[in-house]
Amino acid sequence: MNIPRTSFPRIVIIGGGFAGVALAKKLSKQEVQVVLLDKHNYHTFQPLLYQVSTGGLEPDSIAYPIRKILKDFPNFHFRLANVEEINTLENKVLTNIGELKFDYLVVASGAETNYFGNTEIEKKSMAMKTIPESLNLRSLILENFEDALLTSDLNERNALMNFVIVGGGPTGVELAGALAEIKKGILPKDYPDLDTRLAQIHIIQSSDCILKGMSAQASEKAEDFLEKLGVNVWKNVRVTNYDGKTVTTNTDLTFETATLVWAAGVKGANIKGLDAGEFVTKSDRLIVDEFNQVKGLKNIFAIGDIACMITNECPQGLPMMAQPAIQQGKQLGENMVRLIEEQPMQPFVYNDKGAMATIGRNKAVVDLPKFKFQGVFAWYVWMFVHLFFLIGFRNRMVVFINWVYNYIRFDREARLIIRPFKKKLKS
Amino acid sequence: MNIPRTSFPRIVIIGGGFAGVALAKKLSKQEVQVVLLDKHNYHTFQPLLYQVSTGGLEPDSIAYPIRKILKDFPNFHFRLANVEEINTLENKVLTNIGELKFDYLVVASGAETNYFGNTEIEKKSMAMKTIPESLNLRSLILENFEDALLTSDLNERNALMNFVIVGGGPTGVELAGALAEIKKGILPKDYPDLDTRLAQIHIIQSSDCILKGMSAQASEKAEDFLEKLGVNVWKNVRVTNYDGKTVTTNTDLTFETATLVWAAGVKGANIKGLDAGEFVTKSDRLIVDEFNQVKGLKNIFAIGDIACMITNECPQGLPMMAQPAIQQGKQLGENMVRLIEEQPMQPFVYNDKGAMATIGRNKAVVDLPKFKFQGVFAWYVWMFVHLFFLIGFRNRMVVFINWVYNYIRFDREARLIIRPFKKKLKS
Repeated sequence: MNIPRTSFPRIVIIGGGFAGVALAKKLSKQEVQVVLLDKHNYHTFQPLLYQVSTGGLEPDSIAYPIRKILKDFPNFHFRLANVEEINTLENKVLTNIGELKFDYLVVASGAETNYFGNTEIEKKSMAMKTIPESLNLRSLILENFEDALLTSDLNERNALMNFVIVGGGPTGVELAGALAEIKKGILPKDYPDLDTRLAQIHIIQSSDCILKGMSAQASEKAEDFLEKLGVNVWKNVRVTNYDGKTVTTNTDLTFETATLVWAAGVKGANIKGLDAGEFVTKSDRLIVDEFNQVKGLKNIFAIGDIACMITNECPQGLPMMAQPAIQQGKQLGENMVRLIEEQPMQPFVYNDKGAMATIGRNKAVVDLPKFKFQGVFAWYVWMFVHLFFLIGFRNRMVVFINWVYNYIRFDREARLIIRPFKKKLKS
Repeated sequence: MNIPRTSFPRIVIIGGGFAGVALAKKLSKQEVQVVLLDKHNYHTFQPLLYQVSTGGLEPDSIAYPIRKILKDFPNFHFRLANVEEINTLENKVLTNIGELKFDYLVVASGAETNYFGNTEIEKKSMAMKTIPESLNLRSLILENFEDALLTSDLNERNALMNFVIVGGGPTGVELAGALAEIKKGILPKDYPDLDTRLAQIHIIQSSDCILKGMSAQASEKAEDFLEKLGVNVWKNVRVTNYDGKTVTTNTDLTFETATLVWAAGVKGANIKGLDAGEFVTKSDRLIVDEFNQVKGLKNIFAIGDIACMITNECPQGLPMMAQPAIQQGKQLGENMVRLIEEQPMQPFVYNDKGAMATIGRNKAVVDLPKFKFQGVFAWYVWMFVHLFFLIGFRNRMVVFINWVYNYIRFDREARLIIRPFKKKLKS
């Protein structure tokens, strides 16, 4: 990679998610050369991916060009690259577009879907961690309803209209709620030839509550909201397999569906060269100390979802959410300047701002450190916070317009099969 | 296709473009059964496709779900289908999802890119007739600039930054203008490591003027606008081949480019069973009479780009634009009711409302029947007319916000490589 060396130390950041972007911004005015690598040329606002899958938002309004974020920063370079290996002995990264030496490396590669080794589920199910994946799910849902019109086999038709979501975390809950609203408000009008009341939405959670990371109050209320929307919530059920038609579980329960969404787990998006050894957890995250330094590696750091920072409050590591990522990115930016100036670094202290999830129209649950509330007000708070953290004024405006429109009209207009997922028609 | 027969006559419409949708709306309250077939589940607002390719608009805001257009019409059915053949003897269409009998058939399948038999150009060039094609072009442009950073071969780098557009019609002119603005306003900030001044934009026209269908005044002014924006306009030059690297012409001129956009011709998107015989023109359009009836076929009609209606003013057939399509769709809707009621049909009279093209910021050319004007006011008229004809309130709002934002900020934020066109990175 022909990036000229300067007299400044070179910091290579892998990943332009919440953590990587927060770090880059902090380093913008410093005497360092920064190279940011990402396999996409845009930052993705992951918390709203489920709205892309369900036609509520355009994909382009939850993405933001990384080059634009960096454009006013001197000494910054972006390269669209897939990092294939990290060589910790020679201080270089190997990518699909060549090698790059670093003085400091920050791994901010995020998380990826964890199938826990089940390759059949991996092959047959849908994930929702990236914009292309979310668009594939959007296409599949719509294609399934088009196909339901074509079959006279009732079982097949029902399977095409059913949805099974595995995992009762925020992603699963928010997706289930959105699907329930589509079933009620949009499908009967779009598909008058189908009895869309027969469409079933199931959410399957292996433990005894949904939204496990939140308060009992939030969890119970969310379950209540889901059930009122007609979603079937199954707890203490573990999915064992999916052959593309039938979902089997560790109980007698089975489900017939053409759409299985796997939101049951994430793991660190680890990279060869750092993916084994003392610093890797069971779920492929990198164990870091309070300075986000990877255990035993002086000039290599990890921030965001990939980093596992164990604290007294979080013995399993900080939660894999936007807030720890942003806070770690900012703090590491300050610490790297201290490190280069040979000042002592400051330990990271997580400021837990709480968690929230939306289930549907006027229905959300919010846990703040001091208050917990659910319902309409929580829903407004949820929307405000998401608009606030979305990058880009234009994105905020477009998302806002869509939300107002969807709210007033009970609609979601981006129900477009732009790239078919199941079969290719002549385009 | 299991669509139950009713006592009403069945009208099958192939294509949900301007013509098909206008016809469907006219038939909404009539005693007919209508089946609309399209290979996409959305209507595309084709005049703005070039803004999708150049990152100015989201694809989702120039598309509109066809099912939503039809949702309040009784006796309407939509099927996502690729029509493979028309059987005029047995009055049925054959599709990838089965056969369908009709009483009346309306072909509104539009136009497709015409490569005039050059399969190498067809394989190596980019077209811009559909949303997926426009998104492919968007990805390719951005990927080429990312690749330009990776090569130290100056010729290769320049070729990656050059654009050759073949065809000086509205599509070619509007795309060239948009690329020139991107070159000036966005590329230098996004790619500080590249000398983007070296990027060249060429538009090649085989005849002696661009915007051939418009007035001499509009054509000259458009050329003037393009040249001021730094676009190289080549007239009386015909492209003979493109091997993926070098564009050859019928003159000594050659161009090195990684991006050839083929906007040099369209032909009717004709369908087997109607694609030969007395009613087909050289460019695959169906010759229709003043009632849009296909020559010699009593119950088969054609409207929009696929229909070639020869009038005194237009001996080559009406222009392949939105206005004739919309007007023919509406008129045919009324005529079909007359036909079914055994009343005499009324001949179609084209109301020429003029033509317009935009070249860039504050630069457009407008030919109205009584006035011709160019510049800032023409640009406002262009925007107003396009917003007005766009389907859907939400789409209009989102497009409007994008235009205001792009105008104020000299920006185009949808420069996202969501589905890579050239190479697949891990996603």
